[in-house]
Amino acid sequence: MTYCVALYLRDGIVCLSDTRTNAGVDHIATYAKTFTVEEPGTRALVLMTAGNLATTQAVVGEVVDGRAFEGGAGRTLKQAETMTAAAEIVGAAVRRVHDRVAESLEAADGRFDATFILGGQIKDGPMRVFQIYTAGNFVEASEETPFLQIGEHKYGKPILDRAMRHDLAIADGAKLALVSLDSTLRSNLSVGLPADLTIIKRDAHKIETHRRITEDDAYFVQLRKSWSDALRAALAETPGAPWLSGDDQSAPRDTNAQTD
Amino acid sequence: MTYCVALYLRDGIVCLSDTRTNAGVDHIATYAKTFTVEEPGTRALVLMTAGNLATTQAVVGEVVDGRAFEGGAGRTLKQAETMTAAAEIVGAAVRRVHDRVAESLEAADGRFDATFILGGQIKDGPMRVFQIYTAGNFVEASEETPFLQIGEHKYGKPILDRAMRHDLAIADGAKLALVSLDSTLRSNLSVGLPADLTIIKRDAHKIETHRRITEDDAYFVQLRKSWSDALRAALAETPGAPWLSGDDQSAPRDTNAQTD
Repeated sequence: MTYCVALYLRDGIVCLSDTRTNAGVDHIATYAKTFTVEEPGTRALVLMTAGNLATTQAVVGEVVDGRAFEGGAGRTLKQAETMTAAAEIVGAAVRRVHDRVAESLEAADGRFDATFILGGQIKDGPMRVFQIYTAGNFVEASEETPFLQIGEHKYGKPILDRAMRHDLAIADGAKLALVSLDSTLRSNLSVGLPADLTIIKRDAHKIETHRRITEDDAYFVQLRKSWSDALRAALAETPGAPWLSGDDQSAPRDTNAQTD
Repeated sequence: MTYCVALYLRDGIVCLSDTRTNAGVDHIATYAKTFTVEEPGTRALVLMTAGNLATTQAVVGEVVDGRAFEGGAGRTLKQAETMTAAAEIVGAAVRRVHDRVAESLEAADGRFDATFILGGQIKDGPMRVFQIYTAGNFVEASEETPFLQIGEHKYGKPILDRAMRHDLAIADGAKLALVSLDSTLRSNLSVGLPADLTIIKRDAHKIETHRRITEDDAYFVQLRKSWSDALRAALAETPGAPWLSGDDQSAPRDTNAQTD
């Protein structure tokens, strides 16, 4: 399984993906699911993948590495003139891979399944973030719907629904994405560290941050702990229902002790 | 869709269910999914249901209402001598309904799908909480795994994973169940209010609280707001990543303004 989230912010894009792949519970591996394309001063793009690994690797091979596909060279993200053209390049690659493998995959009881998040900015065009579906079609994030998720998205969604806004600062966006990932890690073993965090700032035309976050990452360790503590403290501080008897209420808590 | 959660606490059981049923997005109805069986001084049980409504109503009809099923009278929860026997009565009813309808249901492209949470206490036996599967088999909550969920469970799970403990006070459990439901309501339109909250205290052998919580419930309105505020405040107070530049950090916030 996979968890990838992209936040579309006023000042840039924050992308975060896990790296776990599994075929059953006893065939676990680590593969990057985030790929970047950069021409400083001209373009900076990030592509995240979810779904069947053979399929997503084939698509990435065509659109990022520019590996020729059977039947001629495909276009790559380096050649896209606009972000919409870039999304169309990914969509077309998904459909080509589908045409090659879907029938054999289904004959082997597999399922053709590949989704992508593509974000970035090219030349004078706007910064944009797209989610590309298995059929190769796509939707775009907006100020009203400022985040996109692929893979195991449900556990990490409640905090985004409550706290995500297009005008968050980039550092707050990074925190929020990491908290959303942490909620997913705790609830689904098939999503695992390390994670890849990528930040592209608006009009910078470069990959600002591309950081691999491991179990030992001091900031992530601290964030996980302080977030859990904050949730438990928030719960303790919220008043109990007035229609429950006093006997059922917890004793007043020492919040410091509570968060130790 | 449905969301039901049961918390197995030292001092009792807290159960919460929504009431929305839907067949597509334009066929929405409100049905209770929580049923209680009470003999003051002897037994108090709560049964919550998820899945195909015709199936769950048939099971409830047999085990709660004691309606005779085709072929003879079934045993009901009022007749169970122990909680394990009660879970077996529900499991047997699920299998009987399966035998009657599964074939026709599948012929009509339907799916036999019914899961249950059963909690309570009978006479001198211990308080127990079971999750009963579509096949009629069941698992039990424990001090180490002190909550069970059925239906659309993922959105409401992160807060339970972080904050649920067997030794929470009952009022804290009620808060936690309501927060977990709120996370689900925000993320999935097919889960909807009103909700039914049921509390059975250990050794009380009666339904302590059975409260319908509507959109207008003053406590739930306050809880939803204060929880959202607390989450946003917690996010604002968590330090930003030291490896991001100062420009990307948000300005220090006035937490009071933040939580207004």
